[in-house]
Amino acid sequence: MQSTDTIVALATPAGVGAIGVIRLSGPDAISIANSVFRGKDLNKQASHTIHFGTIRSEETILDEVLISLFIAPHSYTKENVVEISTHGSQFIIESIIRLMIKKGARAAKPGEFTLRAFLNGSMDLSQAEAVADLISSNSAASHQVAMQQMRGGFSNQLKALREQLIHFASLIELELDFSEEDVEFANRSQLQQLILQIDGVITELIQSFELGNVIKEGINTVIAGRPNAGKSTLLNALLNDDRAIVSHIAGTTRDTIEEVLNIRGINFRLIDTAGIREATDTIEAIGVEKTMQKISQSAVLIYVFDVLALSASEISEDIERLHRPGLTFVAVANKIDLSINDRLKEIKLPEGVSFVAISAREKKHIDDLKNMLYEKAVGNRLSDNQTLITNIRHVEALQKTQESLQRVLQGIENPVTSDFLAMDIKQALHYLGEITGSVTTDDLLDNIFSKFCIGK
Amino acid sequence: MQSTDTIVALATPAGVGAIGVIRLSGPDAISIANSVFRGKDLNKQASHTIHFGTIRSEETILDEVLISLFIAPHSYTKENVVEISTHGSQFIIESIIRLMIKKGARAAKPGEFTLRAFLNGSMDLSQAEAVADLISSNSAASHQVAMQQMRGGFSNQLKALREQLIHFASLIELELDFSEEDVEFANRSQLQQLILQIDGVITELIQSFELGNVIKEGINTVIAGRPNAGKSTLLNALLNDDRAIVSHIAGTTRDTIEEVLNIRGINFRLIDTAGIREATDTIEAIGVEKTMQKISQSAVLIYVFDVLALSASEISEDIERLHRPGLTFVAVANKIDLSINDRLKEIKLPEGVSFVAISAREKKHIDDLKNMLYEKAVGNRLSDNQTLITNIRHVEALQKTQESLQRVLQGIENPVTSDFLAMDIKQALHYLGEITGSVTTDDLLDNIFSKFCIGK
Repeated sequence: MQSTDTIVALATPAGVGAIGVIRLSGPDAISIANSVFRGKDLNKQASHTIHFGTIRSEETILDEVLISLFIAPHSYTKENVVEISTHGSQFIIESIIRLMIKKGARAAKPGEFTLRAFLNGSMDLSQAEAVADLISSNSAASHQVAMQQMRGGFSNQLKALREQLIHFASLIELELDFSEEDVEFANRSQLQQLILQIDGVITELIQSFELGNVIKEGINTVIAGRPNAGKSTLLNALLNDDRAIVSHIAGTTRDTIEEVLNIRGINFRLIDTAGIREATDTIEAIGVEKTMQKISQSAVLIYVFDVLALSASEISEDIERLHRPGLTFVAVANKIDLSINDRLKEIKLPEGVSFVAISAREKKHIDDLKNMLYEKAVGNRLSDNQTLITNIRHVEALQKTQESLQRVLQGIENPVTSDFLAMDIKQALHYLGEITGSVTTDDLLDNIFSKFCIGK
Repeated sequence: MQSTDTIVALATPAGVGAIGVIRLSGPDAISIANSVFRGKDLNKQASHTIHFGTIRSEETILDEVLISLFIAPHSYTKENVVEISTHGSQFIIESIIRLMIKKGARAAKPGEFTLRAFLNGSMDLSQAEAVADLISSNSAASHQVAMQQMRGGFSNQLKALREQLIHFASLIELELDFSEEDVEFANRSQLQQLILQIDGVITELIQSFELGNVIKEGINTVIAGRPNAGKSTLLNALLNDDRAIVSHIAGTTRDTIEEVLNIRGINFRLIDTAGIREATDTIEAIGVEKTMQKISQSAVLIYVFDVLALSASEISEDIERLHRPGLTFVAVANKIDLSINDRLKEIKLPEGVSFVAISAREKKHIDDLKNMLYEKAVGNRLSDNQTLITNIRHVEALQKTQESLQRVLQGIENPVTSDFLAMDIKQALHYLGEITGSVTTDDLLDNIFSKFCIGK
């Protein structure tokens, strides 16, 4: 699957910076660069070396540059790769890219370098997908999950499953060759055992998506409460320590979310419920519908109430109204002092609803609330080196694998001929292969790589 | 002037991209990088080589990276330099920079890498200033001027002047040693000759600033005309071919200017005069003052009129009203057809005002207008390898040099003692030295490098 053309793109972000890096990959990468480079003869240099010189268009010096050489197969794409480090001027970068195109390179499509890395066997498809996840990762946890996937954690797990299945598939294929003799090379109860084991692993992987997804995307967390419950004060108290880091991260995501709270590497995306805040008196009044809508799109609800202003029954009513199954619900008693401890005991909490008493203004017990949020949303489900699925495409492929394996199991229990078993095992292998890309279509690849940035 | 600490910064623009490059410079650059790098031992590698590996914080893998090594003095700063090519994630980049700081590096100030390059003799001050100009260059001409300055064109010219002056300065110093003997080692008429010659060069350099500045900043060009003169159509006709390029360049400057027209590498910044456009009838009506203000801040005025709607005397009146000495004035007769040629002859044009007849709608003779604009604004003043001053700091230093040299000339004509001559020549050398940085102050350096971006 060797590419015949050479692609070029800016690999660094557009905008003002000290340097820009233009990347070429393909059979002619080095000769194209060499044809406009005044310095050493790049064709005669070793891989992984750097060379200073000028890039010229006719006799005009476009820039003084550093050229990094990567000779096939010792590069990201396994092709010849040249990286040109230029001064960070848009004019220079555009001029050099145009010059490279004039000399025979082609403008790269989004993700095309990584596509080539995949096609040339440098990484499998799930690893390639993790490259994009890694670039957009914005918390320690999402970074860790993407890094593990890029480094092949998930791929290796799938590879092990596939190899075991392939072993049985080949035995059953053998039975087909001897079908008139009615032999069984593949031990049915061993196959059953294996499939149950694989099914267990797949189920675990599918279930990990819930956590993997919130780690990747952040956890939508609604803060709701009656007016003057101290919601804004709580928001500020929560964001207090992390404000600097948060505002930095927000730079990339400012358009879609308002505030991000990072608790032990997990991003909680805090969502305002103006509806309740601006309602005149009770939650019932206005905005309940709006709030309910926001809550229905969220994973976590922080319900804040002023223990001094509401009765236990009012609080219980609010909680009952806002609560729904599956929602992680944390009730926060704000403006606490010691005298009101008894009153808190009277509040009725539905099954699974947790409770924290704080003073947002005095920043008391804010850490208790943070710990509670982390425990409820992540708990001990996140361990080192554990594989988490973060990609809905992978979930769908795993589900289809599981369905095929179920048919194999049924075929063993209500015996069918070997050719039916073989077909279902092949189907399962097919779906597993879609994840790692050992089975692909152009549409699938287009779909995956078009979401990459250009230059990657 | 060796730095004792190691600085670190992101060298590529912030934002989403395939890769980011973090740069370290200083005595500990390599050992700091090595302390967190898992791969080859960076301390044992050759300069100008690239190494693949991981950056780790404790046992957490922050990223898979490529590390480029530049061993002193073979680097931009002449110090040990390490460039770390990471995945383009803000999270990763921040994590790695923080790690480097934890390991002993210091966050670099704006322009600090280039400051070190200057302090370590890699380039002189005017070359360092050209690095920033190069990065912000956005047209072929501004790029060429900055490139020539960065590569030492201007510096070499100054160096030649300085060396000749130093020769005479030392001869006159010698006279001071023998002052009681009343000898003249320095031939006064030769000195006079030299100073006149230097003065000529300096005058030329100072005069080049007018052109250098418009090349660097673009030429403010007002388009004015009565309502329905066809101003918008003309604007579109002018921008037509270059729209793609223009919109690209505008990305970096969108906030300050509306449209940029590039003619043979020179940027004309087209400025709207809504005042006139919205006036009801004649230029006198409203907006004259506003327009006059815009014109007073501009170098070029394109006055557009509808030959069919106005009489020759009305046009002449408009031109007289808008014209001022020093303004490059181009009168454009729009909506021409052959029948009205005679009428154009009746228009009175002040001295120096040029005239072009076009049809903006039919895009007739638009190139004539562009050629006219280029001829009037640049003409044949821009030749290859010619030195153009683009920096007001350089102009001021040259002017002060010239004043000192004038005093030397006066001292030769109305003879003064050698020590007065010596003082004025030294003064001239001092001001020349300020340009190249052989004479500097901390304030001057701060002032220059604080305008750089971080990472350069």
